[in-house]
Amino acid sequence: MNKKRISIWGSTGSIGTQTLDVVRQHPERFKIVNLVAHKNAEIIFNQAKEFRPSCVILTGEVESGWHSRFHDMDVRLETGPEALITSASSGSEDMVVNGLVGAVGLTCTVNAIQAGVNIALANKEVLVMAGDLINSLLRNRHVKLIPVDSEHSAIFQCLQGESPESIRRLILTASGGPFRSRSLDELKHVTVKEALAHPNWDMGAKITIDSATMINKALEIIEARWLFGVSPEQIEVVIHPQSILHSMVEFVDGSLKAQLSVPDMRVPIAYALSWPDRLGLPFGSLDISKLYRLEMIPPDPDRFPALKLAYQVLETGGTAPAVFNGADEAAVKAFLDRKIEFTQITECIMEALNRHQKIDNPSLEQIINADQEARDTVQGFIRLMK
Amino acid sequence: MNKKRISIWGSTGSIGTQTLDVVRQHPERFKIVNLVAHKNAEIIFNQAKEFRPSCVILTGEVESGWHSRFHDMDVRLETGPEALITSASSGSEDMVVNGLVGAVGLTCTVNAIQAGVNIALANKEVLVMAGDLINSLLRNRHVKLIPVDSEHSAIFQCLQGESPESIRRLILTASGGPFRSRSLDELKHVTVKEALAHPNWDMGAKITIDSATMINKALEIIEARWLFGVSPEQIEVVIHPQSILHSMVEFVDGSLKAQLSVPDMRVPIAYALSWPDRLGLPFGSLDISKLYRLEMIPPDPDRFPALKLAYQVLETGGTAPAVFNGADEAAVKAFLDRKIEFTQITECIMEALNRHQKIDNPSLEQIINADQEARDTVQGFIRLMK
Repeated sequence: MNKKRISIWGSTGSIGTQTLDVVRQHPERFKIVNLVAHKNAEIIFNQAKEFRPSCVILTGEVESGWHSRFHDMDVRLETGPEALITSASSGSEDMVVNGLVGAVGLTCTVNAIQAGVNIALANKEVLVMAGDLINSLLRNRHVKLIPVDSEHSAIFQCLQGESPESIRRLILTASGGPFRSRSLDELKHVTVKEALAHPNWDMGAKITIDSATMINKALEIIEARWLFGVSPEQIEVVIHPQSILHSMVEFVDGSLKAQLSVPDMRVPIAYALSWPDRLGLPFGSLDISKLYRLEMIPPDPDRFPALKLAYQVLETGGTAPAVFNGADEAAVKAFLDRKIEFTQITECIMEALNRHQKIDNPSLEQIINADQEARDTVQGFIRLMK
Repeated sequence: MNKKRISIWGSTGSIGTQTLDVVRQHPERFKIVNLVAHKNAEIIFNQAKEFRPSCVILTGEVESGWHSRFHDMDVRLETGPEALITSASSGSEDMVVNGLVGAVGLTCTVNAIQAGVNIALANKEVLVMAGDLINSLLRNRHVKLIPVDSEHSAIFQCLQGESPESIRRLILTASGGPFRSRSLDELKHVTVKEALAHPNWDMGAKITIDSATMINKALEIIEARWLFGVSPEQIEVVIHPQSILHSMVEFVDGSLKAQLSVPDMRVPIAYALSWPDRLGLPFGSLDISKLYRLEMIPPDPDRFPALKLAYQVLETGGTAPAVFNGADEAAVKAFLDRKIEFTQITECIMEALNRHQKIDNPSLEQIINADQEARDTVQGFIRLMK
């Protein structure tokens, strides 16, 4: 069997390192082509030593000494954001695992699809910002995009062997994050440290904060709409604090399928890498006793207004989802920098959406402009709030 | 679209009437060819009036007046067990829904497969008695056998789009029946009326008693082994009192899929009729609040020895499963006739298994003989117990 050629974008992050964990289990199946990270040269050097990619790309600043160290190892080092854009267009791999965080992953994903490369997508912002555009590119280039998010992987797994017309609704589960049982008033005083401590999943800072505000689930609603071609009314969210049941599909005959596993991202990552096959993995069989108590609780729309926003944004359409996403990125950064309070994250997003004049059927450039405009609006709004 | 031609064996029973409920929802999809029942002429006459089959078969005794009544309706009435055997061999339908109960369904199922007819199987005893033989017939004739049992339908649904090598284990759920919380001592004094009152499912008498003894689950373990080609060690049972989660598959990557629905047999029946499509059905979408509390409890091997017996019977192989099934049918009948106590059902089966000299790779005739021998052993054992 030919090895599948894989590039990892964001190889030093949570998704990237866990992807390498999976590849380490199955060296007979995968060959790493490119490793891409922002600036952590030390970590990516060690990854390169183990996995021997053709090329390492660091999009941030790098001390000059690294070039010769990589050169000595016979691995090409390229630097700067343009290096990723160029590499993405080269089509030198069978699949890209996009573990980037935020809008930064959009252009290079478009390039990779245009180059005919399949995408394992953890970088949900790509679909949130440009779902319609991405879907038409995928169709034109006959390229597959496989979700890595645990919820979307669950739905994707449940839909194997099913036709799209059979779907009645998708039920996304949400852990509810660390503040599931806090009152609206208590939420105001949440600290950065508290918000970064997710009870079930070990993830990066941005997605952990998004989990705490439930904006992550709002992004997932938008992502699901584009991934599975359903209407927004067909998507529901239910709180499931144990993070064992990762999502469900209800079919037109009243039958539901659910996918369950221990909360370990390596399971959906491996599925995206091996689909439609499955890889034997040693990362933990689910102890049936974990199923002794599975809770499902309807979300409280007052405490977590983000969910309602997702449906509004989808109804508005056009550039609105890109504004939603860009505003969230700016607001989360401001929260992490201690410039705004936890509950103000959602307020910033609402402000950006209110100010925006949406554009229908936007081009990639218009989407990127809307994203930037949203970030600017949030900056201005934060200055005003002081 | 051509209508799918369906015959229903056991049309006046629980599976049969529910199959007609499904067909009634989708007259554009299905044409009823033959309706088969034992002797309830009144009910099957009304069914024939509504669904206009070509032929009605009553395998039991019928008053002569019925012939002219069916004749006036332009429906052929045939009678006696041979009429079913002949009809099964005719290949006049695309699919048979076998809703018969017990060993009586074996020969006609073999005939239908040989005639190239697909089988929707509720009559699990067919696979329990002759799994290996049935599987090789299915392969030779390129015929599909789709499970109707809710647990096996759940597994079958979860396996769509998956390869057999991906299966790590199958987890069959069991409601635990009406006596789930009774002590071994209390079980001795169970009455027929108590045993016939199943908490979740509305089923025939035989299967309801089998649920109470957990022998139904033992039969399902054996059925699953042949349906899905797994080894007995890959099959586990877990008690799930709510009967909402109908069974699960764990894959080699640690991912599990489960199928859930309201406990309504029309859901798996419809799936068997429409597979690989799904039919829109109005029989009840699962209220998410039903998921608020899903319990999973390991079964107590002391109180319900039937499960262990299933694994022993599979290990013995050959004619042993047919003996297990035949002895159970005789013992359940004796219990319903108030000749033995509830806990003696399993004792009768053990006696029959102990007395039996198993035959490997048995022919259909040897299987049928083993079944009869088991019934005789149970009769003799019951006489001795008095």
